[in-house]
Amino acid sequence: MAITYREAGVDIDSGDELVERIKPIAKRTRIAEVVSDIGGFAGLCSLPKGIEDPLLVSGTDGVGTKLKVAFATGRHDTIGQDLVAMCVNDVITCGARPLFFLDYFATGHLDVSVGEEVISGIGDGCVLAECALLGGETAELPGMYADGEYDLAGFAVGVVSRKAILGPPRVQVGDKLLGLASSGLHSNGYSLARHVFEQKMKIDWDTHLGALGKTLGEALLTPTRIYVRAVSALKQAISTDLHAMAHITGGGIPGNLPRVLPPGTKARVRMPPTPEIFRLIAQGGPVEPDEMLRTFNLGVGLVVALAPTAVEAARAALTQAGETVVNLGEITAGAPESEPFVEFV
Amino acid sequence: MAITYREAGVDIDSGDELVERIKPIAKRTRIAEVVSDIGGFAGLCSLPKGIEDPLLVSGTDGVGTKLKVAFATGRHDTIGQDLVAMCVNDVITCGARPLFFLDYFATGHLDVSVGEEVISGIGDGCVLAECALLGGETAELPGMYADGEYDLAGFAVGVVSRKAILGPPRVQVGDKLLGLASSGLHSNGYSLARHVFEQKMKIDWDTHLGALGKTLGEALLTPTRIYVRAVSALKQAISTDLHAMAHITGGGIPGNLPRVLPPGTKARVRMPPTPEIFRLIAQGGPVEPDEMLRTFNLGVGLVVALAPTAVEAARAALTQAGETVVNLGEITAGAPESEPFVEFV
Repeated sequence: MAITYREAGVDIDSGDELVERIKPIAKRTRIAEVVSDIGGFAGLCSLPKGIEDPLLVSGTDGVGTKLKVAFATGRHDTIGQDLVAMCVNDVITCGARPLFFLDYFATGHLDVSVGEEVISGIGDGCVLAECALLGGETAELPGMYADGEYDLAGFAVGVVSRKAILGPPRVQVGDKLLGLASSGLHSNGYSLARHVFEQKMKIDWDTHLGALGKTLGEALLTPTRIYVRAVSALKQAISTDLHAMAHITGGGIPGNLPRVLPPGTKARVRMPPTPEIFRLIAQGGPVEPDEMLRTFNLGVGLVVALAPTAVEAARAALTQAGETVVNLGEITAGAPESEPFVEFV
Repeated sequence: MAITYREAGVDIDSGDELVERIKPIAKRTRIAEVVSDIGGFAGLCSLPKGIEDPLLVSGTDGVGTKLKVAFATGRHDTIGQDLVAMCVNDVITCGARPLFFLDYFATGHLDVSVGEEVISGIGDGCVLAECALLGGETAELPGMYADGEYDLAGFAVGVVSRKAILGPPRVQVGDKLLGLASSGLHSNGYSLARHVFEQKMKIDWDTHLGALGKTLGEALLTPTRIYVRAVSALKQAISTDLHAMAHITGGGIPGNLPRVLPPGTKARVRMPPTPEIFRLIAQGGPVEPDEMLRTFNLGVGLVVALAPTAVEAARAALTQAGETVVNLGEITAGAPESEPFVEFV
């Protein structure tokens, strides 16, 4: 008996069906710069007009084992926002505006409905990030993923004028640090969080957590906040008084904030009160405070370094854009020979 | 007892160690346009000078279950070239020059040596594609992948002048089609190929195949050919007589060649003799000829549509660039109401 690709586990018709369902999602994210429609060999996008000496800024990321929460709860329509958030929040840190996004969706056996839910979440994320879903790859890999599971990777490209790049060279002793509230764990630390809730505390995903006002599954699936619009408003408000931004992902504040510090400086940080979800994890493990700090964002998703004179205007713009803002600390002189570091006070 | 992120399966130190090992690989791929070094929040790259009205061209892809051959043979240093090839060969079809590449490498438990081998193959691919490895993500996802397994996704960005975009609008009745030889299966159809060799023929990976002069594992791991330099030479040689290109991936020639045909045309294609590896699969399945044609490239990795007067110059340039070139057919008028299609003669 002759055998077929479908019998070997790959159904090209399902892939084509999903591509059709993605088209309206991509259309919803279209920005003026997009040249091609989805489905060609490659996606085409022009550069926004009027950017002097434009530089392309790109970032790639996944969502870690937050995926396992989506699998366990059967809720697939928000994890795509996490994917976009993880990528675009990196891209904006250097002052860039996101332009377009591509996704890679890999699964053992393609369920077109699940795929559509996932990609609709990606579309939602792209709308929030004001970037176009320009292309993607759906891969059916028999035997690589457990039934009902999939992995996701995202790629974002943005653009910034060379003279507007933010980062360590702009940061000075005396700069203030503002923290933008996270919406929860974002997309880091889930292997530890799941270990605590599943193995140590043995709580079900649909257990209602009084202190959080939602189920554990809902709390852990809360989509990663996308800071694109807030940062755009911030740039409008304080212009060159905005010096640098750190996206708080794996490694937490100690792992990410030093990336924006120039040599010879340190960041003095006073952490805001720890949100309830992190307190539950710390108690339920237990997980030591330092391990919490190096694994989770602990309520701060983005750190902004700015001129001290601009703090009030920055707070006003960010609050107006819907962000919750905390005074996180300041840049001080560090030991001259040491690497930049974060001191928690 | 307090628990840690490492005990939950994620070792940030291993990830940091791999990042250090990636730095020299990325450095080897650096092009003049790269602004940032790897390791910041995002990668920065300028545009080449002198491109009028530049458009960004992007593509993403994986390598399918060719990965399973890498796992089975323990050979991890070439699959990265496949990853780059699948992405950049898409990007060049519209006339673009690749600029940079990012990778996503996901595994259950990070083996730094395997990771380094994989990324060194990506570096080799980037060198062949003359694009920079600008960034990447290494994700450790406990419980998502079987021991010793990983998935890969790639993302390439290129640039083309708006007036130089290739594609259907340039293709005319009378155009000739040239085929550039593939190096083997490239990165498509592996679920079917593995099914045939493992389940039907029950051949070991280290079985020496006399007709191929190598082991089955070696034959199936042959890296996907990267056509960047050849196409660059072709553009130099025949300029605007180059009309369109189709990268032959999943779906084969019938699934990919129609993407470059304008309405009312068809491609008349005479396939060259089928390379031995595909004959083995067809016989070993057996797999019907039409299924072979819709699953594999059958020896043709890239199809070029060009003006008939430019055929000799094109063949000379491509041969000089190291390609094996076949006359594949031509564009003729199709039924006016039908979708563009491929007729095999």
